[in-house]
This record gives sequence, structure tokens and C-alpha cells, in this order.
Amino acid sequence: MPEFPRVHENGFVGQVDNAQVPRFAGPSTFAQLPRLDEVGSADLAVVGIPFDAGVSYRSGARFGPAHIRGASKLLRPYNPAVDLSPFATMQVADAGDLVANPFSLEEAITGIERGARELKERADRMLVLGGDHTVALPLLRALKSDDQIAVIHFDAHLDTWDTYFGAAYTHGTPFRRASEEGLIDTSACVHVGTRGPLYGARDLVDDRELGFAMVPATEIDALGTAGVAERILARVGDRPAYISIDIDVLDPAFAPGTGTPEAGGMTSRELLAILRQLSGLNIVGADIVEVSPAYDHAEITGIAASHTAYELISAMSPRTDTRSDA
Amino acid sequence: MPEFPRVHENGFVGQVDNAQVPRFAGPSTFAQLPRLDEVGSADLAVVGIPFDAGVSYRSGARFGPAHIRGASKLLRPYNPAVDLSPFATMQVADAGDLVANPFSLEEAITGIERGARELKERADRMLVLGGDHTVALPLLRALKSDDQIAVIHFDAHLDTWDTYFGAAYTHGTPFRRASEEGLIDTSACVHVGTRGPLYGARDLVDDRELGFAMVPATEIDALGTAGVAERILARVGDRPAYISIDIDVLDPAFAPGTGTPEAGGMTSRELLAILRQLSGLNIVGADIVEVSPAYDHAEITGIAASHTAYELISAMSPRTDTRSDA
Amino acid sequence: MPEFPRVHENGFVGQVDNAQVPRFAGPSTFAQLPRLDEVGSADLAVVGIPFDAGVSYRSGARFGPAHIRGASKLLRPYNPAVDLSPFATMQVADAGDLVANPFSLEEAITGIERGARELKERADRMLVLGGDHTVALPLLRALKSDDQIAVIHFDAHLDTWDTYFGAAYTHGTPFRRASEEGLIDTSACVHVGTRGPLYGARDLVDDRELGFAMVPATEIDALGTAGVAERILARVGDRPAYISIDIDVLDPAFAPGTGTPEAGGMTSRELLAILRQLSGLNIVGADIVEVSPAYDHAEITGIAASHTAYELISAMSPRTDTRSDA
Amino acid sequence: MPEFPRVHENGFVGQVDNAQVPRFAGPSTFAQLPRLDEVGSADLAVVGIPFDAGVSYRSGARFGPAHIRGASKLLRPYNPAVDLSPFATMQVADAGDLVANPFSLEEAITGIERGARELKERADRMLVLGGDHTVALPLLRALKSDDQIAVIHFDAHLDTWDTYFGAAYTHGTPFRRASEEGLIDTSACVHVGTRGPLYGARDLVDDRELGFAMVPATEIDALGTAGVAERILARVGDRPAYISIDIDVLDPAFAPGTGTPEAGGMTSRELLAILRQLSGLNIVGADIVEVSPAYDHAEITGIAASHTAYELISAMSPRTDTRSDA
Amino acid sequence: MPEFPRVHENGFVGQVDNAQVPRFAGPSTFAQLPRLDEVGSADLAVVGIPFDAGVSYRSGARFGPAHIRGASKLLRPYNPAVDLSPFATMQVADAGDLVANPFSLEEAITGIERGARELKERADRMLVLGGDHTVALPLLRALKSDDQIAVIHFDAHLDTWDTYFGAAYTHGTPFRRASEEGLIDTSACVHVGTRGPLYGARDLVDDRELGFAMVPATEIDALGTAGVAERILARVGDRPAYISIDIDVLDPAFAPGTGTPEAGGMTSRELLAILRQLSGLNIVGADIVEVSPAYDHAEITGIAASHTAYELISAMSPRTDTRSDA
Amino acid sequence: MPEFPRVHENGFVGQVDNAQVPRFAGPSTFAQLPRLDEVGSADLAVVGIPFDAGVSYRSGARFGPAHIRGASKLLRPYNPAVDLSPFATMQVADAGDLVANPFSLEEAITGIERGARELKERADRMLVLGGDHTVALPLLRALKSDDQIAVIHFDAHLDTWDTYFGAAYTHGTPFRRASEEGLIDTSACVHVGTRGPLYGARDLVDDRELGFAMVPATEIDALGTAGVAERILARVGDRPAYISIDIDVLDPAFAPGTGTPEAGGMTSRELLAILRQLSGLNIVGADIVEVSPAYDHAEITGIAASHTAYELISAMSPRTDTRSDA
Repeated sequence: MPEFPRVHENGFVGQVDNAQVPRFAGPSTFAQLPRLDEVGSADLAVVGIPFDAGVSYRSGARFGPAHIRGASKLLRPYNPAVDLSPFATMQVADAGDLVANPFSLEEAITGIERGARELKERADRMLVLGGDHTVALPLLRALKSDDQIAVIHFDAHLDTWDTYFGAAYTHGTPFRRASEEGLIDTSACVHVGTRGPLYGARDLVDDRELGFAMVPATEIDALGTAGVAERILARVGDRPAYISIDIDVLDPAFAPGTGTPEAGGMTSRELLAILRQLSGLNIVGADIVEVSPAYDHAEITGIAASHTAYELISAMSPRTDTRSDA
Repeated sequence: MPEFPRVHENGFVGQVDNAQVPRFAGPSTFAQLPRLDEVGSADLAVVGIPFDAGVSYRSGARFGPAHIRGASKLLRPYNPAVDLSPFATMQVADAGDLVANPFSLEEAITGIERGARELKERADRMLVLGGDHTVALPLLRALKSDDQIAVIHFDAHLDTWDTYFGAAYTHGTPFRRASEEGLIDTSACVHVGTRGPLYGARDLVDDRELGFAMVPATEIDALGTAGVAERILARVGDRPAYISIDIDVLDPAFAPGTGTPEAGGMTSRELLAILRQLSGLNIVGADIVEVSPAYDHAEITGIAASHTAYELISAMSPRTDTRSDA
Repeated sequence: MPEFPRVHENGFVGQVDNAQVPRFAGPSTFAQLPRLDEVGSADLAVVGIPFDAGVSYRSGARFGPAHIRGASKLLRPYNPAVDLSPFATMQVADAGDLVANPFSLEEAITGIERGARELKERADRMLVLGGDHTVALPLLRALKSDDQIAVIHFDAHLDTWDTYFGAAYTHGTPFRRASEEGLIDTSACVHVGTRGPLYGARDLVDDRELGFAMVPATEIDALGTAGVAERILARVGDRPAYISIDIDVLDPAFAPGTGTPEAGGMTSRELLAILRQLSGLNIVGADIVEVSPAYDHAEITGIAASHTAYELISAMSPRTDTRSDA
Repeated sequence: MPEFPRVHENGFVGQVDNAQVPRFAGPSTFAQLPRLDEVGSADLAVVGIPFDAGVSYRSGARFGPAHIRGASKLLRPYNPAVDLSPFATMQVADAGDLVANPFSLEEAITGIERGARELKERADRMLVLGGDHTVALPLLRALKSDDQIAVIHFDAHLDTWDTYFGAAYTHGTPFRRASEEGLIDTSACVHVGTRGPLYGARDLVDDRELGFAMVPATEIDALGTAGVAERILARVGDRPAYISIDIDVLDPAFAPGTGTPEAGGMTSRELLAILRQLSGLNIVGADIVEVSPAYDHAEITGIAASHTAYELISAMSPRTDTRSDA
Repeated sequence: MPEFPRVHENGFVGQVDNAQVPRFAGPSTFAQLPRLDEVGSADLAVVGIPFDAGVSYRSGARFGPAHIRGASKLLRPYNPAVDLSPFATMQVADAGDLVANPFSLEEAITGIERGARELKERADRMLVLGGDHTVALPLLRALKSDDQIAVIHFDAHLDTWDTYFGAAYTHGTPFRRASEEGLIDTSACVHVGTRGPLYGARDLVDDRELGFAMVPATEIDALGTAGVAERILARVGDRPAYISIDIDVLDPAFAPGTGTPEAGGMTSRELLAILRQLSGLNIVGADIVEVSPAYDHAEITGIAASHTAYELISAMSPRTDTRSDA
Repeated sequence: MPEFPRVHENGFVGQVDNAQVPRFAGPSTFAQLPRLDEVGSADLAVVGIPFDAGVSYRSGARFGPAHIRGASKLLRPYNPAVDLSPFATMQVADAGDLVANPFSLEEAITGIERGARELKERADRMLVLGGDHTVALPLLRALKSDDQIAVIHFDAHLDTWDTYFGAAYTHGTPFRRASEEGLIDTSACVHVGTRGPLYGARDLVDDRELGFAMVPATEIDALGTAGVAERILARVGDRPAYISIDIDVLDPAFAPGTGTPEAGGMTSRELLAILRQLSGLNIVGADIVEVSPAYDHAEITGIAASHTAYELISAMSPRTDTRSDA
């Protein structure tokens, strides 16, 4: 039975040993890592927020966390692209799901914030599996400490709209709310991969006036992934950073399972390459949102999301003295 | 261009003539019928309510109306099973979609009720394409006149729960609310096709105490469709009747595209056979809800729903002097 | 390599031996039977007609033959339901595909007739894998000898319409044409499983005036499969019979992969049960048409069609002295 | 966070409270029941065996346990069809997955037997989620005590073949092996739902000579579900019974997600109805096997399997003094 | 109800206001624009041609127009990539579907030409949603005025074959026919994205002798999208241009829903980038063809097609004095 | 009937003439080429190995050969990218499937080696359609002559692991075994497209110590396809080369139908471009493995695989005096 999590020399409990348990068997935690209650506390908690009452088009992201966890069974301990074994350099654990009221956006946001604050007491940092993008607001509330946060926002959309059908809290508005609430330092925030039609030119003006910068999808070919990463690094500096990844930043070919797809997006190779260059940042939290499994096929989206999660975890790992000599 | 709706001798405008326009071409109204604004008013309006904020499991019914309309292209003018051309015996028209706030259950319900009341001024009766089952409550509010309504409720579930996560208005509660508001005469109401696990024996007790009767799925084999219809007719009598069909009354094999599927359900042949025996009733309105296209395949669910709609329309048709002599 | 067809004691070459070759390997002929050119001639030829230019709604039946062959890999030599090893009682072979011009209905029909006549010289009888229902006309032309043919027509639709968009030869008209051409004895013909809306009451009148009888889907429950078979047998008598099975006679739950699905159809268990009771007839040919793989899922339709084919072959087998003593 | 399993008055820990945690959130154990390690021991353990090296056609059942658990989120505490709250009448827990070597049938069988024996020390009875049908043999080995076991075998196939490609242990042979090893009393065993082509008439003879009885699918209509249940009950008597359900006993329309589908099968309503009549038996174990998710759609098969599991658990529940008075 | 199209200051009626009506509700016209009959006439008409009798492999493009319209619900008014609100700079309207005889290629072509000519009287320019590529010929006939047209042809294939099965008018021949009829100036025509196997080297020679130029897919990496656009612009000059986009110019990953897919194609980002550089041309018409929904998944192809349509509309918009100052 | 393979002037029998037989009709051999038994012997044999008992995650590659053959119907005789008609420059034939024991890895490997050796007597070279990657080992055994072979290994994974669950022969170990057996010259071998997490840094060290070189996916953007090809050519030199292509070298967007997908892979355009630059090599054999159809959609993966096969065949063609003068 899959009850034998591998314990690293430094005491960190890692993934189930796939020499003993096939990857298609065993626990359904993220990457078959231990549950948070098994290890008590963690350096990094992976936590799901099954919630999608804030979406404006296709729903279904409520099943996102389970789907990403399912696809994460393919992950292994060592990340050759950055020469790191992230689960051996810190304790990573799966904290299960935060509960969000599916029938009330306000209560959901309150509940998520409360849950995230509780989780912070047991985990230094957190990687959230959404859920729709509404969840970013309560997460920023919970993560904000003295310094305002710099959000690195990968998304086809701006998510800085004001209201929608009178609702202030939806998946299209979290970063405007966060800005209004003083949670984030928009002068250090940047949208990456933005594309697709908007309601009006005013959308861009408003976003700029709020202080955000943008690397639209149309500039990626010219910049290359190194150029994109450079812009992000220059913008964020040493501020506490939050990386928020709407999976629709990928082209629908790479992420069909999402709610508001837009043609002309990034490839998964580009997204992973950019993330690998962000490891020097002070990342206090991250999310991967808008994975809607009912529209996925053969886990294309789930695999892209779980690999994205893996790179985020790698980027959040301490790097000293853990590199292989190989 | 598909601008040639066939006008019947009695002046009723029917479906686009498929001898002129292939069924895969032409307008996307229900059964390629005229829009309500084309004919001004109607005996029966088919109207969509793209809304699913009230669901407790799989979402997606917001795309239900478009999906049922798409599958309805296969419908033709004459219903041999009941020897009737329903679109020639009364004016049926597609009233488009009612708008429901996707972010607020309360506002959605208010909006749907308002929309339905407005529609009533232009259409004697209405057939609603949902949307989730939450919509039944505002519809009953709009349809209720002097007499309480008898609800014939085809569904795997009771939908008489009280609240869910503190929410009084969800897809699991409309008939309890309707009972509390005095809209329906529960002594004439009946659930048909109920099955699957419940939260407790109390669920059944409560439902019975509210006054509902039940023909569970487990009794269908013994009763046959004639026996089921008999029970319904005896229960309803000549009260104004509202037929509410949650597509999950069908087995998942016949309706995979829905939100809370339960094994062991009805076949589409059984459902259609029962409906054909209800034409003597005084049907003031009807709905088909919980069609969630993201989970459908090859329009299996959409076709079952559109044929169900067709039988409902037939059952709501005036029957005198329209029968063929053939 | 799958080059070892099993030779029966009587010299008939049967299926590839699945004790030597896994069923997922080996040739893609129907049921892994020999090709007609391998055995020279056959008692029964299975032949595909990849053609769908005659369809009025969803196309795709041009891929039907390959799909049914793929699903037929699951068939085994012995049919316990009728206690018969059909491939051991006669030589059955796969004759490949007849060529039909995809851009001209007229040329296609001529080509199919010519191909079928050529095939008749090498095979006593034939089972056709369609293709759309248009193919039934040229097949009846090729099969007609002195006696008119009795058609047993399983279908949701009548297929006795006159023209469609000016076209006399479509998938909705073969049996009217066959009647006009004197190929069939309509007084012995019967539609089975008919259902769904029609263009008008006139459709039924016309069909009856042409001489056809009907067992609509709505009567199946009352008759049972034995009652349906009885009606067919009484109607056909000892005339040369042609069994034409539009896969849409099955409910969309049992055959999603088809072009004009109608809710409320037969189950595959019912269809197979009826066919098993028709073995006493003098069956000169048969077809299974309207399998459209792009709409199939997990070969549900393909499997239903290949099992249907298997029962048709069994029904066309000589029965004397081949029964097991078991 | 979903860490609040509901504790019944009798101390049994039940499902997560869905008034607190939406069903789409929370743990991925079967029916959101506690893990076996949470409760220490159990009256009934649900355990997965992700294994499919024994299949002869479509593979993929290795993902079956996770898929059935996913679909089981829809199950609720109270079973109205038999008036029972199974998780309140005994402690049911999810024991995770047994490990089976994916590359060696022999080692897998040894491993499964060992795992099942270990599990028996912590759980009185077990319900296995397969995996392919090979797993039944080691399970019967582990469950066999003094009395031979009566197997009630729901399946399209006999699974009493001898060898396949020289392999003695495959998904087509478990019950012949079990018979040879003296684990089962074949005079009390019965196949239910058998259908589809066989390799030869000899298959039936052999099976009968081994001592098995059969209720083929072709007899279900005549017998009705009560008649089928009667035959099973008469056959099994008060012997220790093992219920083995190959999901392909259902028609492909009701269970597309399986490895060797055969047309003409049972409906889920029939299967559930039969199982509900078996509660008087002394059931020592049960399995549901051959669920292959890659071929499923919208969880049709997963839902059928999870409801089947639920009825099996209900049938294995103690019945005294737990019935509601309602 | 979605009866409130937004009227721009200049009188143009635009999309339904999604602040009032959710995008998943409302009319199913392209981009929820007004119907042509609502506005009487238009600067640009979007019109469907549901027709696929000309295809040589997978059929299904007859459902293309409805599918692209469905996916176009995600489009919004402002195109940031080219800083333009196309529906505010001219009147764009949905003209419904042209009728094409599904059973006769000749009649279909005649009908399409007639329909397009009638449409021209009410709309200055047109964007056609196919339908298979056969439709390009009658469209060029209808659009040809004094000057021959320069066709910018995005496609994996040349579509300059001569005949196929004796048919002169198929989806593989429109541009040879157009050349023979003198409709187009081949010295200004260019194929873009050509790739995949051909029948022979002669195909290329013939195409070149007809006068066409080519930018094969193999050159895109070296040229970049700017280089490709440059070649197109240089070739076309100021001639009246027709942009014909077979969706199979995209790689199957980006457009699975098509009839003759070829590996190694363009990304949607590349296609959109090239189109954005063509706005200076004098575009008299355009089409997007070969979208076959039965092979699409999660609207990947539909979204790519609707975004392509949006860029085409943008490229056909007048550009003076409409740019935002932002 | 599709019995008219086109004979080239040089006597080579090529594909079925699609001017006579539509591509969706006719034989299901690879590219509708003749069977090996039709032509007796061949310069190049395409042969399937339906086998997947060696996979560690998703199974299903046993259906790979049939799937690739199905998708290969779209291939035509002339390859414009390299100006070559490969089926006219040598005799290419389909040798059917090799038989591999599905229940024993050892017997399967023995059987494949034996089958490949027999095939070598009738075909100078072979292109294998897998099947899982386990098959590469027996193929290398059969192909090895005096000189060790240089393997050009396109794959997301290294496939040089040692054992898995005690099994020495799995899809993750063929190249380590081949190295140990002295079949390959690892100093000339190269992995291309490697990416994704590993079990540990040791995996890379081991692989390097075995002598392999690597072009990981992360370097493709910088190198371009020409740079990748250069590295391969420099590494291999004039040694006998074997090209082994695990379809998972493509990104899941381009090849969803595979068993162990990893995000961040190659595009099909990149893979085809690299292969086109390898024609100068002395290629003694090749394989395309790990195509798992149950996870494919709309043949995306099948088409990528069949086009890859086509380029491999082109690269293995003699080049002198066959180029067109066009």
C-alpha cells in the first residue's frame, strides 16, 4: 500500500517511492507528496481552492484542483532544467482544499482569506491550485505583510475590470480590488501574455493608470523568453512577489481546458522557460487558476498546469548547497 | 437565405421549410421556429434561461439553452406518436433568452421572475429551456394565478431541500420554497423517477410532510409507462399543471450531459411515452433543466432534451379539429 | 505475423487464430476473416461502401466501414445465442470496399450497382457495411432476381420520401425508388422501430399507400421482441428477404455515432434479440448503414453495429448439421 | 479544510459533511469516507487495485480505482432503495491501493494476495475496486477460509478460459484457477449477464463441467430482475458469497469505459435492482473490475460503478435495528 | 432579453452589451452582432455557407458556420492588437446562411453565387464562414468586378487541382477554376502555409504555371511573420484582394476540427500576426473555410476561426480617425 | 474495389490510386501501400508491433499501429519538402504486425526479435510502428550486424533506466540494455528533445556515463532545427543509424495520444524539419512508438506520427536520379 513516503536525509518527506508504488497507484495528493497533516507543518503548502462562482463564461474550474493533482502523478523528484530536487530542499506538503461557499462570492472570499491565514500558520509559503481567478484577491489579503506585493500576472486577460453585473468580486476584477485595497504595488506589477479583444481602449488606459505594466503576447516572439523574463525581473526587483498564472495564458492548443480561451497564446515551452528564470525572486506565494477539466482532453491542460506548478515550486526552493555535482 | 418561415393556412408561422433550407443551415431558434419578435405574440413561447449559479456539483447548464436549440434542428413539424402538428395548431415562437445575473442568486431569481412576467404578456404559455433547476421557483411565481399549481416533477432528486451552505435558493430547493410561498398545491404534486442516495431518511420524511407524492425509479418497471402516467393524472386532476423535467431523470447513458447524474434512471423511450399520455392536462408551463453541454457527447443529451421539449409542446397543444384523417 | 487464418475441417477459412495473434493485432478485415481474394469466392461476402453524399444532416458515414471493421475485432467464432459457428458453416470473406463516386450521387449509385453485380459473381450473398442509406437502392437492383424482394427495414425513419432538394437519390428515398422500380414487394415489406417527428401526416399516408407496414418504436414495449419478430416473419413469409438496418434504429444512447439520431429508440439487446428470431428467412442480402464514427464514443456504435452484423451473418448461415451437441 | 469527517452516534466515522464541504472539494477517498489509517480498523474496507497487465484487449483499468473514487463523490449517506444508511451501520473506510507489479502477472498476483491478507487483519470484509479481472483470483485466495466460496459473477464473459498465450493468470481465467485451487464451490457459483461470441461451443461445455451455472443476458427480459435474483439466491444459499462484477455486464451504452465491451447488455437499473435483492446473503467480499477510464465519457461508467459499489456496501451492511421509522 | 444591441454614436449597431447580457446568453449571430435584416444594410456582412459536398476526406464543414458563431461569443468590441473597434468603425451584421444544395455541386455553386450577388446589394463587403473550400469559386464570381482579384490563400493545400473523380468543382479545385474563368490575377496570388505530401511534383509545376506564388510552411521560421506579410504585400500590391483561409493552414494541434489535416502547420499566433499586417490592402472579401466541428475539441478550432474572422474584419475596417488616443 | 495499386515505371508498386479510390476507402495498409505478401519482398517494410506491456503509466499503445495506419490514409506519393516520391524510388510495403506475447515481456521480446529477423529476409530495412518503447531492444538485436548502431533517440525521456519493479525489459530501459549487450555505439548516440522531471540527478550522470549525448528540449529554441540536425549529424557520422522516435518528444498539444506526456515539448513542424535534414545518414531502421489512441483526439497524434513516418521513409530513400526537374 502507498503508505511509504520517502524521507530525505534532511528529514523532508518527499514523494511516494515509485520504485515501490506505480505512479498510477497511491495517494492523490499533489505529486504524491505527503499531506500537511502527516508532516505537521511545511515550508511550502500546495492547496486547492475548488471554486468557480466568479467566472463569466465557461464554468468548471471547481474541479481544477483534483484535475491538476491527477495530472501531477507524472512528476518526478528531480528537475533537470534547473538542476534541483525541490522536494528535498524544503518540506512540501499537500494541504487539501480550502472551503469556499459555492453560492456566495462574498462568503467565499471571506472563507478563502480565513483558510489561507490559517494555512499560513502551518506553511511558510503556499502554491494555490484554483479555482477561478477570483481567489487571487483573498490570497493577496492573507499574504500581504508590511510590504506591498508585486504581482507577476500571466494571463490572456487583464483582470483589472471594475464590476460585472454589479458584482465587485469576480474572476475579472481581483487585481483592481487588490490595488484599491493597497495590497499590491502596481508599479512593480506586470501582466504577461495579454491578448485578445477587450471591451474598449479604455480597458488598457485604466489598467495603465492603475500602474500595471504589460508584456502582451504579440511581443513574445520579438523578446524571446529571456527578454520577457528580463522585463519581469527588472520590474519586480526584490519586492515580495506573487506569481499568478491563469492557464489561459497558454494557447487553447496547449490548454483547452479553461473558461475564457483566446487564440494566439503562449506555448507551454515558453511559459516553463520564463518561469525557470524567475528563481532569484522573493516569491511569497503563487497560484495556477482557471483549469476547467470538462473542457480538457487527455490531461493536456492538467499536465501543463502540473508542470507549471512544478516550476513554481522549484522557483520557490532555497537554492544554496543543494545542487548536484554531476 | 433562411428567411422563409412557413406560414400555415391558419396564419401560424411554423418552422423554416427544410425543402428550401437544409436543417443544418438557417436560424438557431428552437426547431427553426420564428422569433417571438417576428410574430409579435404567441400561444406558446420557448425561452431559454442560461443560468447555473445554483448548482451543487458539475456546472455548465448556462450553455443548456443554446445546446438544446442546436439539437432541435432535427425536429420536424408532425408528431406521429400523437398524430399532431403542434406548430400548426398554435403559434409557437422562440423568445430568446431571459437574462439572469450570473453572480447573484437573489438578483437572478428576481430577474427571471420579471422576465417571465413580461413574457407572459406576449405569450399565453411558456416552455423554458434551462439553466439549472433554481429557475423553477421564479417561473412558478410568474405563472401562479388564482389557483395553486400542481407540479409534475421528473427528476432523480427531490429538490425539496431547505438550504445549502446557507443559501435558500439553489437548484436543490425550488419546490420547498414554492411550497412555502404557497405557489403550488403539494397535494397534487408528484416526483417521478426519483432515485439515488439521499442525505438521510429525513429527506423523504420532510418531502412527504410537505405533501409531495413520489413515483421512484425503482417502481417504473412494475408500473410501466401507462401506470406511471395514470398515477400522475390521478394526482393532478384538472388543476393547472407545471411539468418540470430535470434531464437527470434519464439514466446517464441517455443524458450524460448533466450536473448530478445518478445511475439507474429512465430511458428516453419511457420518458417520452409518459409525456405523451399527459396531453389531457391543463399545462400552464413547463421546463427542461440541467442540460450541461460540456458533459454531453454527440448531442445525446441535447437530442433527448429537444425531443422532450417537442412532446411537451405537443401536450400543450389544443387538440380539437387538428388531427389528420389519415 | 497474422498470416495464419484458421482453416476449418470443411475447408472454410475462418478468423485469425487469437491464440496465436492477439485480437488487437493482425488484419483489419471484418472479424479478422480472410480477404475475398485470398479464398477466391465465398458463400457470404462482407463488403464496405464508404459513401455519404446522400445524407441530409450529419455526414461522416464514409468512414463507417473501417469503423465497423475495427470494432469487429472483438467478435469470436461461436455464437452461443443461436448455438452456431457461422464462419465454420460457410465461407465468409471480406471483399474490401466498393468504390462510389463521392461527388455524384448518380455515378455513385451506378458504380455501387456495378460493383455489387461483380461481387455477386464471387459471393452468393452479401452483407454491406455502409455508408449512408442511399446504398440500399443499387444493392436491391443488383440483388433482385425473378422474385421481388421483401425488405425488413430497421430504422427510425421511413426512407420513403420522394425527393430532397430536387434529388431523387438520397438516404431518405431508397425504398420509394425501389418500389417504383419494381425491385421490392412492398406488401411484404415492413419498417421496424420507426419514430420521431415527420414532415407531415402525409408521410405516413404515402408510405402506407406504397404498401409498407410498420412496427413503430412505440409498440415495442407492448409487443416484446418475440411479438415484433412474429410480425416480421408473418409479413415476409418465404419471399427473398433483404434486411436493411439503419443503426439509428437504436436509441442515441446505444448508437451516438450516426447522422440523424432520434430519441426513444431500441436497445441493442432488443435489436439483437429480434434478429436472432429471423434465421428461418431466406435472406438474400443485408446492410448496416449510417454509422458515422466522428460522433461515436469508445466504439459504442461500432460495437453495436459489428454485433448486429454478426447476428445477420448467423441468420444467413445454413443451419443443418452444424449445431453443437453440447 | 475538509478535515471534519462526520462521526455517527455509534462512533462510526462517515463521509465528509457536505453541508460544510462541497462534494467537489475535499478528500478523494471513496465516497469521501475516512482513510483506513484514520480509523485504524474497519468493518468494511474499500480498496483499489490499479492493475491491468492481465487484459486481452483494451487496457487502462489501472486507472479504474481513481476513476471510481472520483465518481463516488456524488454518493450520499442514505440509500432510500433499501432504507439504509450503510456508513452509519458499520465502519467503512478507504484502504488506499494495493500494490501490484505492473510487469509480472505472477508477482502481481502474489503481491495482491499478500496485500489482501494484510488488509484482512484490519478490515472484516473488503470491496475491491479494480483493476482487471485477474485480481479476483488472489482475492479469493485471501478470503477463502474453511468453507469454499460461492461466486456470483456478473460479467459478459465466462472468465473460465484455461490459458491465453501460455499465460495461466489473465483476466479471462480467474475462476477456472479458483476452481482448480479449490477456493470456490462451483456448484454454488453462477454467471449472470453472460453474452457475446465465444471461441467455441466447447467454452460453454467446459464451464458447465467445471460446475458453474449461468443466467445469460438473453434471459433477463423473461426473468425480470426478481427472477434473476431468485436464481442467484437459490444457487448460493447460505454459503459465504463473493460478488464479482465486471462492469462489462452492463451494455456499452451504460459502461463504455471498459476493455472488452459486448453489445446487448444489462442496464444499470437492472444491475442495481438485482443487487438490492441480495442483501440476505453472507457476502464475504466483492469486487468491481474492468473500469477503463480512458474509454469513459462524462463518468457514465464511473457513476455506474460507484453506485454499484454503494449497493454492494449496502448489501454487506448489518440490517437489524438501523432502519428508519419513517 | 437580449434585444438591446448597443448603438454607437455614429449610428452603427454593435454587439449585444455584455454588461446587460452575459456572453453565454443572447443571440447566436456572429459576435452577437445584429442580423442584417435588423439593420437593413451593412458595410460588412458576415455570412455562413453550410456546405461540404465538395470534400475529399473528412466531411462535416456543413456545421462550420454555426460552430464559428458559437465560438465568436467570446469576442469583444475592441481589438488592442491593432488599436481598433471594428464594429464601431463600420456597420457589421450577420446575414445568416446562404443556401446551397447539399446533393448537387453544380446547383450549390449556382446557388451560392446567386446568394452572394444578392447579398452584395445589401452589404459592401462580405466575410464568409464555410463550408468547404468549394465555396470560394462562386464567391469570386460574385465579387469579381472590372479588376481581377488577387487571392491570398492560407492553406496547407494548393487547391489548384483539376478534377477529382471527374468532378470539376470540389474543395481541391476552386482556384484553378477561378483562374480559368479569368476571375483572379494569378500573378498577384499567393499560397501561404502550404505543406504536406502531394500527388506528384507535377502539382507544383502546374500551380506555378498557373501563375501562383507560394510561401510554404517550411519557410515560416526563417521569414518570421513580418517576412511572410512582406511577401504577401509585395505580391498583391493595390489590387482588389480576397483572403481565403482554410483553417487547416494551422497545425492540427491548433485546428483539429478540419477535414484534411497536415502536421507541421502554423500556430494561431503566427496566423493572427500575419493578418494584422495586411490591413493596408484593399480587401473586397474573405472566407474562413473547412471548420469541421465534429472533430473539434473544446472549441479549439472554433476559437481560432472566430479570432481569425475578427482580425479579417479588423483588416477590412476603415482606419482613419477611429484610433483611440490612449 | 481497391485492388488497383499503382505500379511505377520502375516496377515498384505504390499507393492505391486515389483518382480511382477515395482515400477514405480501400485497404488499411500504411499509406495504402501494397502488403508485403503482395510484392514478395521490399526495400523497406513498414511493420506494426501492437504491444504495450512495458509501459509504466498510461497503456494503450497496443492499438498504435492500427491508429497510425488509419491516419496515414492522408499521405500522398510526393514529398515536396524534400522533392522526392519515396514510394517510387524503392519498394515500400506493409508487412502487417509482428506478434508479441501480451502477457510476458520476455516472450514478447524474443518473439519480436524473431519476427524482425524473419522480416529482414524479405525487406532490406524496416520502419516499425509501435507499440511501446520496449520494442526498440529486440529490433536493435535483429538489426545489429558487424558495426554497432548509432541511435538517434527523439524522446522526452532518456529510456536508459536500469530496472522498474524488478523488470529489466520495460519501455524505460531499452537503450541501457542495448548498450550492455553491445548493440549500440553510445559514443554516437544522442537523445533529442529530452525534458521533464527525473528521478534524480543520478539519471543524467548514468546516462552520460553510458556514453549518450543529449539535446534537451530547452536548447531547441537557441539551436533552431538546423542546429539540432547539425549536432545529430556530427555525432552519428557514417555509422549505421537507427532513428527511434517516441511520439512524446512532441508537446502534448501535438501528441496528446501517448502514455507519459511531458509539457514543454517540440512542435510537429520542428520534428519534421529536423528529420528532413537527416537524409544523408545511413539509416538501417527506425521506429515510431508510444502512440496511444485512446488518448488521441481527431487523430492529432496519429497524423503527426504518420507524417513522421513519411519523413523517415523519405530519409531512408535512395536519392540519386529521382528528383524532379521541376
